[in-house]
Amino acid sequence: VDFTDVHRAAERIDGVATKTPVATSRTADGIVGARLFFKCENFQRVGAFKFRGAYNALSNLSQGQSGVLTYSSGNHAQALALAGSLTGIPTTIIMPTDAPDIKVAATKAYGGEVILYDKDQTTRESLGRTIAEERGLTIIPPYDHPDIIAGQGTCAKELFEEVGELDTLIVPCGGGGLLSGCCLSAHALSPGCKVIGVEPDAGDDGVRSFHTKTLQTVHNPDTIADGARTPSLGELTFPIILKHAHDMVSVSDAAIIRTMRFLWERMKLVVEPTGALALAAVFDGKAKATGRVGVILSGGNVDLAAALRLFAEPAGG
Amino acid sequence: VDFTDVHRAAERIDGVATKTPVATSRTADGIVGARLFFKCENFQRVGAFKFRGAYNALSNLSQGQSGVLTYSSGNHAQALALAGSLTGIPTTIIMPTDAPDIKVAATKAYGGEVILYDKDQTTRESLGRTIAEERGLTIIPPYDHPDIIAGQGTCAKELFEEVGELDTLIVPCGGGGLLSGCCLSAHALSPGCKVIGVEPDAGDDGVRSFHTKTLQTVHNPDTIADGARTPSLGELTFPIILKHAHDMVSVSDAAIIRTMRFLWERMKLVVEPTGALALAAVFDGKAKATGRVGVILSGGNVDLAAALRLFAEPAGG
Repeated sequence: VDFTDVHRAAERIDGVATKTPVATSRTADGIVGARLFFKCENFQRVGAFKFRGAYNALSNLSQGQSGVLTYSSGNHAQALALAGSLTGIPTTIIMPTDAPDIKVAATKAYGGEVILYDKDQTTRESLGRTIAEERGLTIIPPYDHPDIIAGQGTCAKELFEEVGELDTLIVPCGGGGLLSGCCLSAHALSPGCKVIGVEPDAGDDGVRSFHTKTLQTVHNPDTIADGARTPSLGELTFPIILKHAHDMVSVSDAAIIRTMRFLWERMKLVVEPTGALALAAVFDGKAKATGRVGVILSGGNVDLAAALRLFAEPAGG
Repeated sequence: VDFTDVHRAAERIDGVATKTPVATSRTADGIVGARLFFKCENFQRVGAFKFRGAYNALSNLSQGQSGVLTYSSGNHAQALALAGSLTGIPTTIIMPTDAPDIKVAATKAYGGEVILYDKDQTTRESLGRTIAEERGLTIIPPYDHPDIIAGQGTCAKELFEEVGELDTLIVPCGGGGLLSGCCLSAHALSPGCKVIGVEPDAGDDGVRSFHTKTLQTVHNPDTIADGARTPSLGELTFPIILKHAHDMVSVSDAAIIRTMRFLWERMKLVVEPTGALALAAVFDGKAKATGRVGVILSGGNVDLAAALRLFAEPAGG
């Protein structure tokens, strides 16, 4: 995967994905002592950057497919379901039986067929492969796929095209689809830009992988950043990150909550915990921010009642 | 006050006030059956449209003023304090002793001198006049002032200039500064556009005034739309609204809460209760929305804990 793929992805999603706005904040700039440019993927279709990759993957499928399948209980599920509806490609989504009703309902509402599985009985990958073979479906995994990586890279491409070159670009990281795609765009469009990936402390497999140069894993980490609970970086995303990223760091859940509060109260932006990772790393001094800094707010899908509980607790950490 | 004043205000605030973005929502359009353009004043400086009028008024003051004074416990207080800091004009703000600490602190942080008064002992107007005379201060009231009206009118001016003419423009209404200013802009820039003002049910003095053509009042109405608890329209704002507005309607607090939930959950926008009035009127069918419809989201200053308590209650009404 290289920037040529990102460029093609941008052409495919043009006019379908939202060209999300770039927000700025005098208050945040004052706190940090840098000029921050916030790429607002919370305003993307389905409320997260995931739509970019999903739509790119489906619009790049060869003709005559009987459909696609994925396993996700998060934003990728809804993104793939919507992309399927828009392209006329049937989508099957494998979700655990304990997935929140609201996520199952949203995925169905976007037109996806949801198949629930019992975590104690099987793994989603195993069930996914079985069903995909039975039905002749193409598997589109949540991040470790060339078209997904290229699609997510359009996020940083748009940011550079709107605000110009940056000194640093800070990106939330789960499986590394967004981070690796953004690395490709930064390398092509702002070669001096340092790209920094951010994980939650409990799910710091990527940080450890980056520093040991060996793929590390984590099992079902306990963090509010639900988009970053992935077990490891991918076989495709890891090498790109290793080659092009400047650093990877992690932040505490308490820092994420404080940052969400800032984004909601001061910037009037509803951002989910995973979406606040990059700014949390800036506020906490984990990611050095000087000069012109891009901050990707990756999504805004959060249950209001759950957010209430987060904000109600005293700020710790 | 006429559109010439709005035009001059736009020149004065240019580069100081934020040119707020216009949001759209396929979901909202689908629900309503119209094309909605949301003017996002929640992203304005101090979090509400009030900065436009305050800055316009202060930058239009003659030289040699010893300072300005206002009475407000809401967004106008913070807006005037910030405008004073930016123009170098000292600001004195009269607030009730029971004003929320957070609002007093925010006004002080923007550089305003806060004087607290006891509601049982005096009225804010009376105390304001006394202090203004003693200190030689110019009173800048929250809405009934030519420069305030003209400043608020720049909000609709920007909207029309960005999206073109509209069939309907729906505007929250408290004392009518925003509504009257927007009427002037609509009349000049989109003459066929029907302007509709929206109040909370409990504070429907403007609705009654509009339909009886006689200024009506309300006393301390019980509504979550704290920006629309004003006792009446103003001597300047009422005639403009009577002349140029197409209708005035009111909505229930329950409708406001449902609409806030939509704005936060689906559009990822933090909007305060008063800021949600216009969309609530559309969703509730009180304001007829067909064709191209402008919806002003007037502000986003809301205590998160208080907002989340609203969302926690079962949706009624």
